[in-house]
Amino acid sequence: MSDGIDRIAGGDQGDEGAVEAVRAANTALYDAFETGDIDLMTAVWLDDSAVETVTCVHPGWAPLHGTGPVLRSWSMIMANTSYIQFVLTDVTVSVSGDTAVVTCGENMLTGLPSTPADPSPGLAGGHAVATNVFRRTSSGWRLWVHHASPVLATQEADG
Amino acid sequence: MSDGIDRIAGGDQGDEGAVEAVRAANTALYDAFETGDIDLMTAVWLDDSAVETVTCVHPGWAPLHGTGPVLRSWSMIMANTSYIQFVLTDVTVSVSGDTAVVTCGENMLTGLPSTPADPSPGLAGGHAVATNVFRRTSSGWRLWVHHASPVLATQEADG
Repeated sequence: MSDGIDRIAGGDQGDEGAVEAVRAANTALYDAFETGDIDLMTAVWLDDSAVETVTCVHPGWAPLHGTGPVLRSWSMIMANTSYIQFVLTDVTVSVSGDTAVVTCGENMLTGLPSTPADPSPGLAGGHAVATNVFRRTSSGWRLWVHHASPVLATQEADG
Repeated sequence: MSDGIDRIAGGDQGDEGAVEAVRAANTALYDAFETGDIDLMTAVWLDDSAVETVTCVHPGWAPLHGTGPVLRSWSMIMANTSYIQFVLTDVTVSVSGDTAVVTCGENMLTGLPSTPADPSPGLAGGHAVATNVFRRTSSGWRLWVHHASPVLATQEADG
């Protein structure tokens, strides 16, 4: 996973270390997907607790809630993905207290499913945007919310 | 704006008041849109600060960052919406410290644009899902992140 354009918005003053740690946690999400590593994916997310319930919205999906359903969805998606590579663009990080919000463009290169007629169908590109909310814990920044959605309009963000 | 099915996930123990206050702040977002009230919409959102930068993802759009671009987008959308009514479903609220995450289904009834050939074209329905992140401030819960996206798949959330 390689980062493209990078932009840091906000961040606690004097807390640049937190911003960097959040960026690393965000990268780990996409590394886990690229490598199909469910153990790393599990480590990326918060454990369900009495306080936080994790939420995941895949592009075009309804929300999933709770560690079990969210990790099962990732297992299913990763099992059905032969190849995927991400280039993240316009990464913004906003840290406030023990919560961090990351937004980024997800630029994907995926392997097309092979068929008997076309055993080497090549690659396809895709683009989505994601909001990832992290919570600071005693074991580092963990993912509380992932919401990804397709970009349909051609408008440019002017912010 | 009327609420449909309601589900509360998590919430600080003994902090049911916070959950109710977050639900009211979430309702205010949709009330502002329904009534085209830019003053209420402004009051719903955090002011930009050194710490938090607000983020808004409209369905199919790239992210907007900062109070100015976000509120301008709402002004434009509301000016181009003759009629809209929301029924929110599957509302979940997760409060952790000074941050709250709300997810909900946005079921919309909108007025179709009239044309000379069809001056009364009637209404259209739509469905999206939203993640709304609120921050507790001295003036109540204010919106930090709004991410809404179309639901394309027919899969049901199993969480």
